[in-house]
Amino acid sequence: MAQQPLKRVLVTGGAGYIGSHIVLTLLLTRQYKVLSIDNHHNSFPTALKRASQIATEALPEDATAQDRDSAVVESFTGDLNSRADVEKVFASGPIWGVIHVAALKAVGESSEIPLDYYATNVGATIQLLQIMQEHGCYSMVYSSSATVYGTPPLVPIPETTPLKAESVYGRTKVMCETILADLCTAYPDRWRAISLRYFNPAGAHTSGLMGEDPRGKPGNLLPLLSQIAIGKYADSPLKVFGNDYPTRDGTCVRDYIHILDLARGHLLALEALSDERAPGSTISPDVFPKEGGKYKAYNLGKGHGQSVLSMIAAMHKASGFEYKYDIIGRRVGDVPDLTADPTLAQKELGFSAPLELEQMCEDLWRWQSMNPDGYGEQ
Amino acid sequence: MAQQPLKRVLVTGGAGYIGSHIVLTLLLTRQYKVLSIDNHHNSFPTALKRASQIATEALPEDATAQDRDSAVVESFTGDLNSRADVEKVFASGPIWGVIHVAALKAVGESSEIPLDYYATNVGATIQLLQIMQEHGCYSMVYSSSATVYGTPPLVPIPETTPLKAESVYGRTKVMCETILADLCTAYPDRWRAISLRYFNPAGAHTSGLMGEDPRGKPGNLLPLLSQIAIGKYADSPLKVFGNDYPTRDGTCVRDYIHILDLARGHLLALEALSDERAPGSTISPDVFPKEGGKYKAYNLGKGHGQSVLSMIAAMHKASGFEYKYDIIGRRVGDVPDLTADPTLAQKELGFSAPLELEQMCEDLWRWQSMNPDGYGEQ
Repeated sequence: MAQQPLKRVLVTGGAGYIGSHIVLTLLLTRQYKVLSIDNHHNSFPTALKRASQIATEALPEDATAQDRDSAVVESFTGDLNSRADVEKVFASGPIWGVIHVAALKAVGESSEIPLDYYATNVGATIQLLQIMQEHGCYSMVYSSSATVYGTPPLVPIPETTPLKAESVYGRTKVMCETILADLCTAYPDRWRAISLRYFNPAGAHTSGLMGEDPRGKPGNLLPLLSQIAIGKYADSPLKVFGNDYPTRDGTCVRDYIHILDLARGHLLALEALSDERAPGSTISPDVFPKEGGKYKAYNLGKGHGQSVLSMIAAMHKASGFEYKYDIIGRRVGDVPDLTADPTLAQKELGFSAPLELEQMCEDLWRWQSMNPDGYGEQ
Repeated sequence: MAQQPLKRVLVTGGAGYIGSHIVLTLLLTRQYKVLSIDNHHNSFPTALKRASQIATEALPEDATAQDRDSAVVESFTGDLNSRADVEKVFASGPIWGVIHVAALKAVGESSEIPLDYYATNVGATIQLLQIMQEHGCYSMVYSSSATVYGTPPLVPIPETTPLKAESVYGRTKVMCETILADLCTAYPDRWRAISLRYFNPAGAHTSGLMGEDPRGKPGNLLPLLSQIAIGKYADSPLKVFGNDYPTRDGTCVRDYIHILDLARGHLLALEALSDERAPGSTISPDVFPKEGGKYKAYNLGKGHGQSVLSMIAAMHKASGFEYKYDIIGRRVGDVPDLTADPTLAQKELGFSAPLELEQMCEDLWRWQSMNPDGYGEQ
């Protein structure tokens, strides 16, 4: 029996930490031809080579030529801010859908260079949507963030919480969600989009071949703990910002979700955007209401949070490293507890995030130990 | 005594109804070299020729060469969506400040083609700000709108009202205000911006040489009334949408402000952005707080509103035309009363809007009678 032709899906920012794990997850399904565009501002080409390598090694012995093709990502080096770079990707052949991950993502930096954030995160998204429309490509999975909630009035946070971002970064995400919602409302028979609001992606692929390799000193806790354990930043003591929050041990609580669980959420979102359903599909017919625009936003989180101190303990367990830390004052902008209410994604997409904290830390540590200098690229 | 060199100020959308009256107001001061960029999507080049003509005729007999130069606008035909077009303007010489008027502005249309609105109103604004920054130009007066308030909880509407636009058009204005505020906060020693939230600009220059010439059937009440009086749209009866609103005669109330008063508000805003003060300046030192970003938003309105029926009566008085109208049901999205609280602009800019409704209608009718086909261009 002839195979279904592969749907071509573009992952923007495909070489980054989140993007590369999404790419790998798509490659492993053998149902898509995956394209990536990345400017390597905060990522490395090797990530995509390893994703293709892992997917190719996972092919069955009787893999067809199409299967072999589906295991290799088609990679474009280019900048979403450049119309020409994006058009080159779309000129390569019809693209069915886009998983739009590429963005600047440092909350602190975003308030220092807001124009770069608005240009790259909002301006380039508008341009991408225009180019998609020009090429008859009307499906997008959008990488949003729990930061859209600002300081949430209710925790665990449901999607119905009013969006009130408190950083430039968060505001760029709210703006893109707003634009997508308006676009889907204007063209209910054409455009479909799902925003996935990430809580705290963590861990790495179990092979140890792929993981997070931030340029410069990590801004996030887990990669910082992992790099400290490998021997970096020995001179600068670990700082814990505040232990007087109204949480179980007084330190901030975040909802960590394994990067592979998070990546799988994108597979479900892609399926939800399509008219086709895989056998045994978990996608509810309620994803898009019968009336109105085909736009929806979902939290991707585990639904329970971890404090800073419990993360340090978990990374100690995984790596054996004895962390020393100083408890200092609260950091401006930190919210005590950002834990997702993941019910909607469970109910409507059949999403779950079964991988536990212990595995996140083990996988992260395996990646870090096997790749002390990350991908080893400049 | 040598004259101060002219400050070069760019008006985007300078050929449009609002833009051309701002250009004229600036030309008449002889203090600026005014540049315009306009793609003539909803405007005509003749408007700028007439502005230069009026300002040149108003020159004193002993006008210097610089005075003569200041009375003529330097006009660029170009599209803000094109980086090359905008860069061409900035390559013409240093620009001190930008009055950013250019935008798509039809509320109804904005929900039909949202991507065009987001690209032109938001994407192009981000790009303009980037180009300004690249050229060391850090001052902007931004054309915002009363639509940022959506359905206001309090009328007259103070600037402190939370922004909650209810149309795509309104959301593009809120986004640009947000971006400007973030930019000014990030660079308090560099960037300065003032958003002017227009209520309902009306009327025309008293010469009858300049006025509003919308392409196609006017979407706004006053130009429609004026075109009906000149003999257009005789076949389609005038519609009044709802007479059961909680207003004095049951029809919607809007805050009409004479276009020349509105234009003068931009002169004051420009002065407020500058470190220099004209003799007898009305600009308060409180415009920008000592701490934090140099960004402020002001309502430009008269502070009292006119109902649809009173506007029809006023245009009848000005034109002598006997309007016939059908009262039909309310229109989706219409808000009963949009009247500005103009106190802040009065207090901090010394702004006032003395021209009354009667003069708005007389000036409009003079323009329409003298130019039954507007600027007579395609």
